[in-house]
Parts: sequence; structure tokens; C-alpha cells
Amino acid sequence: MLVLGVDPGSIVTGFGLIEKDKGRMRFVHAGSVSSPAAAPFNERIYNIYKSMTEIIKRYEPGEMAIENVFFAKNVQSSLKLGHARGAALVAAGSCGIKVYEYSPLEIKKSVVGYGRAGKEQVQAMVKVILNLPATLGTDTSDALATAICHLNWKRYQ
Amino acid sequence: MLVLGVDPGSIVTGFGLIEKDKGRMRFVHAGSVSSPAAAPFNERIYNIYKSMTEIIKRYEPGEMAIENVFFAKNVQSSLKLGHARGAALVAAGSCGIKVYEYSPLEIKKSVVGYGRAGKEQVQAMVKVILNLPATLGTDTSDALATAICHLNWKRYQ
Repeated sequence: MLVLGVDPGSIVTGFGLIEKDKGRMRFVHAGSVSSPAAAPFNERIYNIYKSMTEIIKRYEPGEMAIENVFFAKNVQSSLKLGHARGAALVAAGSCGIKVYEYSPLEIKKSVVGYGRAGKEQVQAMVKVILNLPATLGTDTSDALATAICHLNWKRYQ
Repeated sequence: MLVLGVDPGSIVTGFGLIEKDKGRMRFVHAGSVSSPAAAPFNERIYNIYKSMTEIIKRYEPGEMAIENVFFAKNVQSSLKLGHARGAALVAAGSCGIKVYEYSPLEIKKSVVGYGRAGKEQVQAMVKVILNLPATLGTDTSDALATAICHLNWKRYQ
């Protein structure tokens, strides 16, 4: 089962595709999407949907894993994050793939073993778990961490 | 030019279609979409996209008018509203129609003549302007008010 992890953001949305092969996690593809700095907000949001839809159609993951957000810095950043996350959920819905949500605590605990781990610890552990040649950016690492968390949880489902 | 006004919300999303005919606003269609109370949040958000896409394909409006939100009660309601609004913007983007945004103040001023008008005043004026036989619900009235605001502004563009 190929899993798409998504870390949505109105500026940068990270994504990562991994699968489990004979009990081992295998890295397939990862990256991030962003719009030109001058693009209007509604175009940025549509671009997230469009890019996620293209990735789903190209790689055909069976499931999407995404962080469940309940907190944000303030009302402004919550509104922006909500738009970006909504666009990713719409992409999953329009491609007919199921969405699984995990809290930041569950994701960090699953990847680093400690729910209050920092961004750098997540980046380092994603590199180790997926046997990557280099550390990836935080958005991409966070997306892969969400997918790793999902595949770990799925063992118990 | 047929205009689609949208009042997004994660529980209820209002919509209204109007056009200008020989200088007069003409009501075409309006309503609201909501998901079953038990539906998961991500399905509610996808449902907004799906319903708005169906309406756009059926009526073929040339433009979408939507409220520009900068404030919300709290972080939680901002996140939810952001998802709903994001789904509506994605619907516009995927159908290739342009989005115009107006502040609540601009909408109320355009419809009631007073930027701090209450919900009931907006409902009453929408009924008068569009010559409707009855007062519509607040979500539907707000969506029509946004479309009226857009057609009023367009005179000066």
C-alpha cells in the first residue's frame, strides 16, 4: 500500500510517498509545492489542490495521511492553514482516496519516539527510517513523518 | 453576466445566482448545501467543493463573489471556516471562473447602505432588491448579498 503524507501550508505544502515492503518502509517520492510569491491567495489554494491531484493521479496512493490541526498561532494563520488543508482534503476526495488524520504528538511519537520532539529531530529520524542520502526540508520531512506514522499505526488496525 | 455569490461555512454553505438585466438585478437560483450531521469533517469539506462544482457546471456563472474573511471568533472557528472557504475557491479554480472578494463591510454597505447592518436587515434588503416572494435564510441571503455587492461594484470597473 502506497501512502501519501501531506503537510499543508498556504506558502509551502510538503508531500511524501512511501510504502511498506516486507515490513520495511520504502521511500518512493517526496517534494513540496509552492506558488509564485506574487500569486493571489485563491490561486495559491487552487494550486495546492491541483498539485496534490496530479501527484495522486500519477502515483496512485491508496491513502492520504495528514496532520490533524487544532491549534495555530492566531486567527489569521488558522484561516490560511484551513484553506490549504481544505484544498488537500478536496484533492483526496475528488480522487476517491481515504484520509487518515494524526495529531502532531502522534506523528512525533511514532517517528522520534517522543511527542515533543523538535523539527530537526523529525528531519533526522525521517532520513534514518527511510535510509535517505540527505536530510530533506522541514515541509517534506513533516509530510513523510505523517506517512510513516500512518504506516506504523496501520500495523495495529 | 451571471454571478455566483457564496457564503461558505463548514456546517452550511449558502449560494445564490443573480444576473443584471437592463440595469436590474434578476434572481436566478439560490440555496444552501450541508452534510449529514454525522459526516466526518473531511467529507463535509469535500461536499462543499462537489456541490459548488455541480452548481457552476449547471448554471455556468462567469464569476464567483465571496466574502473576504480576516476575523473569526477564535482559532477553532477560523480553521473550520478556512477549510470551507478553501473548498469553494478550489471549485472556482477547477471550473476556471474568476473570484472576487469583498469585505463584510463592503457587502453590507452595498446592500443595506450601512456597513454595520444586522443579519435581518441584509435578509430584508436582499428580498426587496431581488423582488423575492419571501425572506430567505441567512446563509442564502448572505450569499445573494455578496453577489449583489459584486454586481454593484462592477458598474464602476
